[in-house]
Amino acid sequence: MPERPLPTAAEVKSWIRERRNWGRWGKDDQKGAINLITPAKRAAAARLVQSGRSVSLSRPFPTTPGLNNALPAHHYMKTVPRGKGGFAADYYGIFYHGVASTHIDALCHTWDEEAMWNGRDPKKEITFDGATFGSIDHWAEGIITRGVLLDVPRHRGVPCVTQDAPVHGWELEDILSKRNIKLEPGDAICVYSGRDQWQAQNPNRSYSVPFGAGPLDRPGLHISCLPFLRDHDVSLLVWDMLDHLPIGYDVPWAVHACLFTYGVALLDNALLEPLSAACREENRDDFMLVIAPLRVIGGTGSPTNPLAVF
Amino acid sequence: MPERPLPTAAEVKSWIRERRNWGRWGKDDQKGAINLITPAKRAAAARLVQSGRSVSLSRPFPTTPGLNNALPAHHYMKTVPRGKGGFAADYYGIFYHGVASTHIDALCHTWDEEAMWNGRDPKKEITFDGATFGSIDHWAEGIITRGVLLDVPRHRGVPCVTQDAPVHGWELEDILSKRNIKLEPGDAICVYSGRDQWQAQNPNRSYSVPFGAGPLDRPGLHISCLPFLRDHDVSLLVWDMLDHLPIGYDVPWAVHACLFTYGVALLDNALLEPLSAACREENRDDFMLVIAPLRVIGGTGSPTNPLAVF
Amino acid sequence: MPERPLPTAAEVKSWIRERRNWGRWGKDDQKGAINLITPAKRAAAARLVQSGRSVSLSRPFPTTPGLNNALPAHHYMKTVPRGKGGFAADYYGIFYHGVASTHIDALCHTWDEEAMWNGRDPKKEITFDGATFGSIDHWAEGIITRGVLLDVPRHRGVPCVTQDAPVHGWELEDILSKRNIKLEPGDAICVYSGRDQWQAQNPNRSYSVPFGAGPLDRPGLHISCLPFLRDHDVSLLVWDMLDHLPIGYDVPWAVHACLFTYGVALLDNALLEPLSAACREENRDDFMLVIAPLRVIGGTGSPTNPLAVF
Amino acid sequence: MPERPLPTAAEVKSWIRERRNWGRWGKDDQKGAINLITPAKRAAAARLVQSGRSVSLSRPFPTTPGLNNALPAHHYMKTVPRGKGGFAADYYGIFYHGVASTHIDALCHTWDEEAMWNGRDPKKEITFDGATFGSIDHWAEGIITRGVLLDVPRHRGVPCVTQDAPVHGWELEDILSKRNIKLEPGDAICVYSGRDQWQAQNPNRSYSVPFGAGPLDRPGLHISCLPFLRDHDVSLLVWDMLDHLPIGYDVPWAVHACLFTYGVALLDNALLEPLSAACREENRDDFMLVIAPLRVIGGTGSPTNPLAVF
Repeated sequence: MPERPLPTAAEVKSWIRERRNWGRWGKDDQKGAINLITPAKRAAAARLVQSGRSVSLSRPFPTTPGLNNALPAHHYMKTVPRGKGGFAADYYGIFYHGVASTHIDALCHTWDEEAMWNGRDPKKEITFDGATFGSIDHWAEGIITRGVLLDVPRHRGVPCVTQDAPVHGWELEDILSKRNIKLEPGDAICVYSGRDQWQAQNPNRSYSVPFGAGPLDRPGLHISCLPFLRDHDVSLLVWDMLDHLPIGYDVPWAVHACLFTYGVALLDNALLEPLSAACREENRDDFMLVIAPLRVIGGTGSPTNPLAVF
Repeated sequence: MPERPLPTAAEVKSWIRERRNWGRWGKDDQKGAINLITPAKRAAAARLVQSGRSVSLSRPFPTTPGLNNALPAHHYMKTVPRGKGGFAADYYGIFYHGVASTHIDALCHTWDEEAMWNGRDPKKEITFDGATFGSIDHWAEGIITRGVLLDVPRHRGVPCVTQDAPVHGWELEDILSKRNIKLEPGDAICVYSGRDQWQAQNPNRSYSVPFGAGPLDRPGLHISCLPFLRDHDVSLLVWDMLDHLPIGYDVPWAVHACLFTYGVALLDNALLEPLSAACREENRDDFMLVIAPLRVIGGTGSPTNPLAVF
Repeated sequence: MPERPLPTAAEVKSWIRERRNWGRWGKDDQKGAINLITPAKRAAAARLVQSGRSVSLSRPFPTTPGLNNALPAHHYMKTVPRGKGGFAADYYGIFYHGVASTHIDALCHTWDEEAMWNGRDPKKEITFDGATFGSIDHWAEGIITRGVLLDVPRHRGVPCVTQDAPVHGWELEDILSKRNIKLEPGDAICVYSGRDQWQAQNPNRSYSVPFGAGPLDRPGLHISCLPFLRDHDVSLLVWDMLDHLPIGYDVPWAVHACLFTYGVALLDNALLEPLSAACREENRDDFMLVIAPLRVIGGTGSPTNPLAVF
Repeated sequence: MPERPLPTAAEVKSWIRERRNWGRWGKDDQKGAINLITPAKRAAAARLVQSGRSVSLSRPFPTTPGLNNALPAHHYMKTVPRGKGGFAADYYGIFYHGVASTHIDALCHTWDEEAMWNGRDPKKEITFDGATFGSIDHWAEGIITRGVLLDVPRHRGVPCVTQDAPVHGWELEDILSKRNIKLEPGDAICVYSGRDQWQAQNPNRSYSVPFGAGPLDRPGLHISCLPFLRDHDVSLLVWDMLDHLPIGYDVPWAVHACLFTYGVALLDNALLEPLSAACREENRDDFMLVIAPLRVIGGTGSPTNPLAVF
C-alpha cells in the first residue's frame, strides 16, 4: 500500500476548487453538509437503535500535560458552605483545538488562500469576539444521524495505521465493499485508525505537535480521502488519527479542507477503540450517532462527548 | 394555590432522611438514579422519535456580564497562519454552576450536614483535583431516556411561575392527570416554569444571586417536589427555574437535595420555552432526550446542550 | 466650581491634535513620556527616600463579583504532595482593564479615529497574539520616578470628588500653588479623588460600568486635565477616579487620550486613601514611586502593585 | 568540587528542625524574614542608587509551550470600539509556580511532614479560596532592600553550574570572601548559576519537570546553602537555577525548606544574566532591589518583575 498511484497535483486542486459545495444550500448557508441531516434522516437514525447500548467516543478532558497536550485544559475546584451543608463547583477552561481534546470543528475553523466556507473572507469573519460566519452555534440543534464505522486496522489486520501507510480514499471504498456497507447522504463516518495502539507502540513520541515547534509528520488520512467525503455526501467525519502529514501537496490543508470546500464537519481526536470493540460485539457497522456541541455564539467548534447508540 | 397545607418539618425531614436511595444500587454506586436508564430504556426512548424534529434546550454560552451572570464565561479567539491559509481557534472557560449556564449537576455537587450521595464524606471526597466520588464522568455514556414536559404556565394559564406561587409536588401530579401522562421509572422530567417570561416582566431584577451578596428569594419549585421525584423514580430533573427560595425549612437544600438523597440528576437553567412550543406544535408531551456531559474526570457537572428529539 | 468657563471644542481638539508628542522621541518610539525618566531621574527619585516607609497603592486582586466588578478575576488553588510534605500553588486569571483592578495601561491601550500612539494604525498593530506596537514590555525596566500627590478632597475640604464637580486642570494648578509644589519633567502625579469615600456614600451604585450596559456617568477628572499633563511633562498619571463621564465633547476619550497623544502612561484604580494619609503623616507631597509591570510581550498593560516610598 | 565532605543527614536535619525561626517575630507572624527589612533598611537600600540604571530580572510572561513550560500562561486579546475610536484589552492567566515564570513564593507555598511556617497545619490553612496563613498579601508593601549578586559562573570561570557540581553553601561563603562582600541582615541575595547558558548547552532537555512525569534531576543549589541563608539573616533568595535535584537526603524540600523553616522568601526563575553583566559594567556587587508582588489575598506567591537599580 499504496498499490495505486498517488493523485496528481491537478487532481488534488480539482477536489478543492471544482467540487466544492459553495452555494449548494444557499450562498449565506452556515450549516454546510449538516443540511443533509433532515428530520427524516434523524428519525431514521433513531430507528437504528436496537440493543440500546451506548458508547462514549470522548477522551477524558485533557488536564494532564504531556507529549500530545501542549496546552493542558484547566480544572479548578471550589467548595462553598451552604447552611449546614455545602456544595462543590468547578471551573473548566480549554483551548480545545489541537490533538488532545475530543472536539468538533465548526465550518469557520479553517481556510485556504482563497476563502472560508461559502467563499467568505476570514479577515472579515474572524473577530476578537468570535466568528461571524460558520460558527458552531449553527449546529445548536445537535447532530443526530446514522454513524458508520470504517475500521482500518481490522481491514488491514494490523493494530494501527502507521506513518508509511496512510489511509487512502480507495481504501475506504474497499472497506465499504468488503463489509458490504452502503453509505447514504448525511451519514457520519467514523474512521478508526488505531491511534491509541500507535501511541502504545511509540510511547516517547507525540502523535502530533499542533502548536509550537516540533516534528511535522504523523500517520493518518491521506488527502485522497477528500473526494470520498464528497462522493458519498458524508455530513461529518469522526476520526482518531487526523490528516496524514506531510501533506505532500502545496496546499495548507489536506482532509481538513473539507470544512471550507464541502461544508463537511470534523470531529477530531475521537476515542474509537471502544467503538471498534462494540461494533464487533454487536456485529454491526452502523448505529445512531449523537453530537451535542455547546451553544457558543461565534465559537469555532466545541469540546464534545459523542455518543454511539446501538 | 397553595390550596393544600404545606408539608410539616417532619415530613420534609422524612423525605430527605427516610426515603433516600443510598445503597439501592450498591453502597459504592456513583450513578444514582441514572441506573434506571437501562439499555432497554434507551432503546424505548429512541422508539419515541417520529418526526425527527430536534430542539436544543441550551441557553447560549454565557459570556455577557449581567444581572444573572456574576462570573461570565470566557471566550477568547486566536487566528494562526497555516501555509497559504490559516485557522481560527478559541478558548472556552466557565465556572458553570450558578444560574447563567445550562449545565448538569453530578451527584457530588451538593451535600447536607450528614453526607453526600451514598453516605460519603465531602471532606474526603472533594479534593483540589476534583471529586473522587459521584463525579460527572460516571455518566460518560450519556443520558438517553424518555423526556416528559410538565408545562406549569400552560397548566396555570399564566405566562410564568411567580414568587408567591411556587410549584408544588401535588401540582406536578395534577399536570400528569390533566394531560393523561404516565411516568415510567427512569424518565426525565422537564419542568417548564416560564423563566424567560418572568425575566421579561422583571427586567431589572436578577432571577437569583448564587455567588456573593444579594436578595435570596426566587420563584421556582417547592421542596414538596422532592417526593414526586422519588415516587415516580425520575432519573433526571430538567428545569428552567430552580428551587423556590426561601426554602422555608431548616435544611440547606430544597429540591437540590435530590442529588445526595435520591441520586437524581439535575439539569439547571435549561431553555424550555422552545420545548414548550414544540410540544404544542407536535401535540406531544414526550420525546427522546439526549444529554452528553463532557467527560471530565472528577468534575462536579458539565455545561451541556440537551437535545429533545420528537 | 467650575468658576471658570469650560474649554471650547476647538481648545479640546487642539490639545489632542496639535500638542501631541508624536515623533518627539523618534517616530518608532514605544516608550512615550516614560523616556523622560532617565537614569539620573531615577537616582534623584531614590534620593527622596528618607524614612523608608513604604505604601502599597494597590487594591486587592478583584476576585469578588460586585457592582464594579463585572468580570471578576480568577484565583484557583491546588495542593500537591511532595515526599512527606507538599506544596500549594494557584492560578491567577484576570481581564484587568476596567474599574476593579489596579493596573497600568500601555500606550497601545486606546486610540481615536486617527491613530494610536505615534500615528500607528490599530488595525495593523493589535493582533490576536498581542499588540505589536506600544505594548507593556517596553517598560520592562520599571517606572521609578518622583511621585507627587495632588489631594483634591484635602484641597476642597470634602471627602470626595462628586459628579457635579469634576476635577479640572486649573484646579490641579491651584493645588500645586497652594501646596507650593514644583513639578519637574518625568514626575508621576497621583491625583487622589476620594473614590472609596464616594463609594461609601453611594453603596448601591457602581462607580462605573466599563463593560456591558449601564449608566455612563461617573465623577472624575475633566478633559481639561489633558494640557496639565502636557505642560508639566508628566510621565505617568496615577488616579483612583478616572475620566469624568459624560465627556461633554465629541471625542472617544477624555484624559485617557493622553496615552495616544502624549505618550503619558496611566495607572488606573489606584488605592490612594492610604497615600493621602501617609503624606499628611510624613508631612510631604513627594516620594519615590516604583511600578514594576509584568513583562508580557505584546500586553496592553499589567495588573500591578505600585509602591510609594517616603 | 565538592572538595569538602557532604553534610550528614543529622546536620541537614538540624538545619531544618533546630535552627528554624518559628516564633522569632511572634507565633502568629506571617512576614518571616521580610521583617528584617525595616524602614531604615529600605532607606539604606535607596541610598545605594547612584547611576540610576535599572535592570529587569524577569523572564517574559511564559505563553509559549516548551520543554520547561508544561502549563503555558494565557494571553488573550480583545478590541472594543469606543465612539469613533476604540481600545484593546487582554486577559492574563497563569499557574505561575514551576520553572517557566519569574515569580515569588509566599511562606505558605511549601511544607514538610511537620508543618508550614511558624508551625501551622497546611490541612487547616490551605483552602479552596486561598491560604489563610503566610499568603503573599502580607508582603503587599513590597520588598525593597539591598540586593547582592553572588555570581557562581564568574567565580568558577565557567559558563554555568552543571549537574555534577552543585552550588554549596561554602562556595557562597568563598564568593563573599573573594569579592570582599559583607552581607547584612535583611539583604536579598541573587545567586546567578547561568541557567540560560546551561539551556543553550542542553537545547533538547528541560531544566526541570515540576508537574507530571519526567527526569527528576537538575543542576542548582545544594541543600548545604540552607545554613548560609540562616547565618546571614538573608531575607530573600533570588535565583535562576533552583534546588539541585536529586536532593540526596530524605527530606521533601532542599533549599525550598527555607520558606517554612526560616521564613525566607524565594524568587524563582529570575533572569540573572543581564544582572551579571550589569554588575560587571557598573563594577558593583550590590544595588537596590525592588519587588512588588500582586496584592492577592490568600495567594501562594505572585508573578513579578523584580528590578535592580544601581
